[in-house]
Amino acid sequence: MKVVIIGGVAGGASAAARLRRLDESAEIVMVERTGYVSYANCGLPYYVGGVIADRAELTLQTPERFRERFNIDVRVGSEVTAINREAKTVSVREAETGRIYEEPYDKLILAPGAAPVVPAAVSLDSPRVFTLRTVEDALALRTFVIEKAPRRAVVVGGGFIGIEAAENLVEMGVETTLVQRPAQLLKPLDADMAAFVHAEMRAHGVRLVLGGSLEAVDEDACGLVVRLGDGEALPADLVVLVIGVAPEAHLAAEAGLALGQRGSIAADASMRTSDPDIFAVGDAVEVTHGVTGKKALVALAGPANKQGRIAADVICGLNSRYGGSWGSSVIKVFDLTVASTGLNEAAARAQGYDCDTVILSPGSHAGYYPGARPLTMKVVFERDTLRLLGAQIVGAEGADKRIDVLACAMQLGADGARLKDLDLAYAPPYSSAKDPVNMVGFMIENVAAGLMKQAGYDEIPALRSAGATLLDVRTEAEWDRGHIDGFVHIPLDELRDRLGELPTSAPVYVTCQSGLRSYVACRMLAQHGFDAYNFRGGYGFYRVVAADGEPVRCARPCGAER
Amino acid sequence: MKVVIIGGVAGGASAAARLRRLDESAEIVMVERTGYVSYANCGLPYYVGGVIADRAELTLQTPERFRERFNIDVRVGSEVTAINREAKTVSVREAETGRIYEEPYDKLILAPGAAPVVPAAVSLDSPRVFTLRTVEDALALRTFVIEKAPRRAVVVGGGFIGIEAAENLVEMGVETTLVQRPAQLLKPLDADMAAFVHAEMRAHGVRLVLGGSLEAVDEDACGLVVRLGDGEALPADLVVLVIGVAPEAHLAAEAGLALGQRGSIAADASMRTSDPDIFAVGDAVEVTHGVTGKKALVALAGPANKQGRIAADVICGLNSRYGGSWGSSVIKVFDLTVASTGLNEAAARAQGYDCDTVILSPGSHAGYYPGARPLTMKVVFERDTLRLLGAQIVGAEGADKRIDVLACAMQLGADGARLKDLDLAYAPPYSSAKDPVNMVGFMIENVAAGLMKQAGYDEIPALRSAGATLLDVRTEAEWDRGHIDGFVHIPLDELRDRLGELPTSAPVYVTCQSGLRSYVACRMLAQHGFDAYNFRGGYGFYRVVAADGEPVRCARPCGAER
Repeated sequence: MKVVIIGGVAGGASAAARLRRLDESAEIVMVERTGYVSYANCGLPYYVGGVIADRAELTLQTPERFRERFNIDVRVGSEVTAINREAKTVSVREAETGRIYEEPYDKLILAPGAAPVVPAAVSLDSPRVFTLRTVEDALALRTFVIEKAPRRAVVVGGGFIGIEAAENLVEMGVETTLVQRPAQLLKPLDADMAAFVHAEMRAHGVRLVLGGSLEAVDEDACGLVVRLGDGEALPADLVVLVIGVAPEAHLAAEAGLALGQRGSIAADASMRTSDPDIFAVGDAVEVTHGVTGKKALVALAGPANKQGRIAADVICGLNSRYGGSWGSSVIKVFDLTVASTGLNEAAARAQGYDCDTVILSPGSHAGYYPGARPLTMKVVFERDTLRLLGAQIVGAEGADKRIDVLACAMQLGADGARLKDLDLAYAPPYSSAKDPVNMVGFMIENVAAGLMKQAGYDEIPALRSAGATLLDVRTEAEWDRGHIDGFVHIPLDELRDRLGELPTSAPVYVTCQSGLRSYVACRMLAQHGFDAYNFRGGYGFYRVVAADGEPVRCARPCGAER
Repeated sequence: MKVVIIGGVAGGASAAARLRRLDESAEIVMVERTGYVSYANCGLPYYVGGVIADRAELTLQTPERFRERFNIDVRVGSEVTAINREAKTVSVREAETGRIYEEPYDKLILAPGAAPVVPAAVSLDSPRVFTLRTVEDALALRTFVIEKAPRRAVVVGGGFIGIEAAENLVEMGVETTLVQRPAQLLKPLDADMAAFVHAEMRAHGVRLVLGGSLEAVDEDACGLVVRLGDGEALPADLVVLVIGVAPEAHLAAEAGLALGQRGSIAADASMRTSDPDIFAVGDAVEVTHGVTGKKALVALAGPANKQGRIAADVICGLNSRYGGSWGSSVIKVFDLTVASTGLNEAAARAQGYDCDTVILSPGSHAGYYPGARPLTMKVVFERDTLRLLGAQIVGAEGADKRIDVLACAMQLGADGARLKDLDLAYAPPYSSAKDPVNMVGFMIENVAAGLMKQAGYDEIPALRSAGATLLDVRTEAEWDRGHIDGFVHIPLDELRDRLGELPTSAPVYVTCQSGLRSYVACRMLAQHGFDAYNFRGGYGFYRVVAADGEPVRCARPCGAER
C-alpha cells in the first residue's frame, strides 16, 4: 500500500506517524510545500517575540528524523499542484528545480491546512507586510524586528494569532496597534467576556481599534500607512496580517471532491472525502460541531492531530471515528489566561437555543492560601434541560484547568446541575473545597429550582424606568471605592434588620462584588416576600464590562428574557 | 423548625449557611467545641509554616459574621455531650462556665469530624507533643516553633497532614524526620508513584523512616526521644502526631444510631442516619465509594462540604442525594504536585478488579514553549471494559488539571479509550495538541486493540532468567547517562536497520526515556515478527522507582500478569 500525504504539519504529520506504527510495510510519501514538517505551528508568535529562543525548538521533528524513525519519504519544498483521481496520482512541483512529476497513490490524505486571508487591497510584496503561518513567516518577521528595530506595528486581526502576535511585538518593545473589524477581540467569547481581554491588552499598551475595517496599506519611503474605513490613517513600520484563515481546498475542488461550507473539504466521521481513497484532515476540513451537531469549520491544532490519527487508523482497517469538534481553546493574553469551549451565549442564541447563563468570579484557589487570583467564568446552558452548551473563563490562574473540566463534562453529556457533584481534587494551593466548577453546578441548580432568579446589567436602564429597586449589598468600603448610579446601599450583614427600608411593591435587583453575597441577599429577600433578582456577575464583572464601552454590551438584547 | 448542628467547620458550616438560604425562618443553632467556626482546616499546616501569615486568614468566617449574615446562633467553646433522641434534645456543656443545658431540636445534623489517632503509648500532656486538627493546635505549634526555635522535629504519620506539616517545619528551618508505619507515604498512591514523593521529600532534607512503628515518646529535661519498633531512638525537640484520624462517632453510638465501618456513622444518600430526624455529614460518616459502590471512609473537605449542603436541602424538602466519594485529592509536596482519584492499582486488585495500567511521562505543556515540566501519570482501568478505576499524577505543573479532567471523565462513566476523543483546550503555554489526557486514551486504546503489549520493570529478573531480550532504544547520550543492566542498546532511529542483531526466538522488552519511543519500537518489532512488549513508564520512571528501594516495588506480584 502506498499512501501520499499532502501537508506535513499537525494533521499530516500525525497521520504519517500513526500509519507507520500501524503498517511497517506501507510506502508513505509526505509532500510539504514549505521547508519544514511537523513544526510548532502554535509556537510561531512566541518565536517572533523570543519567548521561544531557539529556532530549532520550532522544528523538533526534522525531515531527516521522520525519514529515519518512521521510514517516511518526506519531500519538503514540494507542492502538489493537482490530484488526478482517475490515474490515482498527484502532480508534484519541486520549488527548487521547477521539476514537475506524477506521484502515484493507493490512498491519499489531504492535510493542506488553511491559508491566511489577505484583503484584495493589500499586497504581500512589501518586505514590511507579514503573515504568520509558516516557519518561514516567523523567521522573516523576527529577523525584521531585530534588524530594523521598528517603532510602530499594526496587527490586523484580533483572533488567537493576532493577539499573540501583538503581545509578542509589545514584549519586543514595538508600539502596537491591533485593528479588528468586529467590535470585540476573540470571536469565541461573548462581548462581556471579551471586555476582560480588551482591558488586559490596553493595560499592556496595545492600542485597540475595534470595529475598524482595513481599507488599504500604503507604502512610501518613510514606511507604511494603514488606512481604515473611517478615514483614520495609522503609520506603521510593519504590518502583520492575521485577519483569519480560509480552508485550502482548491486542490480538492479542482479534483471534483465534495466541498463543505465556505470552500472547505467535506469528509465523513472517518475523515473520508467523497472519493473513498482520499481522506482529508485538519483546518481545511468541515467537521461536525459537538454541541449543535451541525457542520462547522474549526481551525485548531487539537482536532487536526486527532483527525490525522483517525485517517491513518481507517486506512489501516481500524474502526476509528471522529467525534466532532467542541471548539475548546485557550490563549495567553499577557498575564491573563482566556479559555472557552462549546458555544458562547451569542452563538447559542443565534443557533436558536433557549439558553441561560451563570457568571461567577471565584478565586483560583482557597482565598486564605497566598496567590489566589480571581477567575471570571460564564457558563451557558439550555434552560429546559440544563444541558451545558459552552463556557468561557478569564483569569490569571486556573482558567485552563476549569475549562478542561467543563469541556470534559459537556462532552460526556453532564447537565449543568451535575457539575455540583463532581468530586474534584482539593488542597488550598490548587482549589477550594467547593471548586469553581462545583459552584457553577450549585448556581445552575439554584436557577433551575427557582431558588435564584437572575438579571443582566444591560437591563438596568429598563429597570430604572420601571421603578425597580436596585440594591448593592457590599460593605461600606467597597461601596466607597465605586458603585453603580441609582443603587441603594445596604451591606448584607445589615440587610435583615433594614428590610423595612425597601419598598415591597417593586422587585429588587441585587448586586455585590462577585455575585455570592447578592445571592444570599436574594434568598433572604425572597423569603420576606420580595421579588428578588441576582445580577449575573458582581460589581467586579460590571466594572470591567462597563469600562469597555457604555452601555454595557451583552449578547442578549435588553429585556428579552422576561 | 429548629435545627441544631453539632460541629461548625466544613460540613456543619455548609449545612448552616444553606439552611438559612433555604429557610429564613428556621431557628439554627450551631454548637462548636473549639473557639472557631468555618475555619480553614486544610490551611493549618501552612499557618504553622508562615505561608499563611495572618491568623485572621484561617478564620475568615467568625461566629459574629455567621450570626449577622445568616442569623445563626453560633455557640463556640461548647461541647455536645449527649443526644437524647426521645426528648429530641442535645446536652451541651459550656467549656468556660462548665454549665450543662439541654437544647431541643426538630432536626439534628452531626458534623463532628474525625479525631487524630493517638497511640496509647503517647501522652499528649507534653507541651512538645502536638496534633494538628484545630486552629488552637496550629496556633500552639507555630508559637512553639517561633518561641522555642526547636532544632529537630519528628512527624509521625505520612498522610496529607503529616507531609504538609513536615514541609512547613522544614521551611521554618527545623530538621525534620517523618516516621510512617507503612513502607510508603500517601496511601492513595501506589508504591511506584509514592517513590516520586519520597524522592522529593528527601531532596528537601526530610529524613524518611518508612516502615517505622512508633513505640513510645519519652521525655526528659533535654527533650523528647521517639522510640521506634526496631529499637531506633530519634531525639526530638518536638513531635507532631498525625498518624491518621478516626470518625468521632461516640455521640452517635451512645445515642444508638446505626454505625458504619470502623466506628463511623451510617447515613443514606440523603445524609440521613437511622433516626429520620438526625443527619450526619463529613469525616465521621460512612459514604459509598464511587468506584466500588461499597461503603468507605473518605475524610476530605470536598465531600464534607457537599454533604452539608445536601443535608440542608433534604431537611428543607429538596430532593438532594450524595453521589458518592471518589477520593479525589491533591497535595503540594515542596515543588511537586501529587494528585489522585479513584482507586490505585493495589486497591483495585485488592477489590478484585482485573485491571491494567498505563504509565506515561508527558510534558505539562508543549515542549517547545519554555517551562514545560514532566508529569508522571499512572491510570488504572478495568481490562475487559476499559472502565476507568483511578489515576495518579505527580509533577511540578499541570497535575491538578489532569487529575480533575480524569476524575470528571471517570465519574461521568467514560471508558479509558474515550479519553482520546476529549476536545481539550490547547495553546503552547498550557498543554500539547495531544493533551496528556488524550495520550492516556491513545495508550489504553492501543492496549485494548492489542497494538501495545506491556510489561513491568518488576518482571526484569524473571525476564532475564527466561532469556528475553531487554532493549533500550534511547540515544547514545541518554544511554551513557545511565541505563539498566542487561539491556541491549539500539537507538530507535537505527533500529529498523539493525533488527538482525536481535534474536527472533525470544520476546523483546523495550524501554526508552518516557515510554513513547519504546512504543514506536514495539510496533516496528511486532510487524517484523517479534513478540514485543513495552515497559510501563520509561527509564525516567524506572530510575526514580528503583532509587527508592531495590527491587522495584509495584503493586502487582512479579509475573502475575502473563
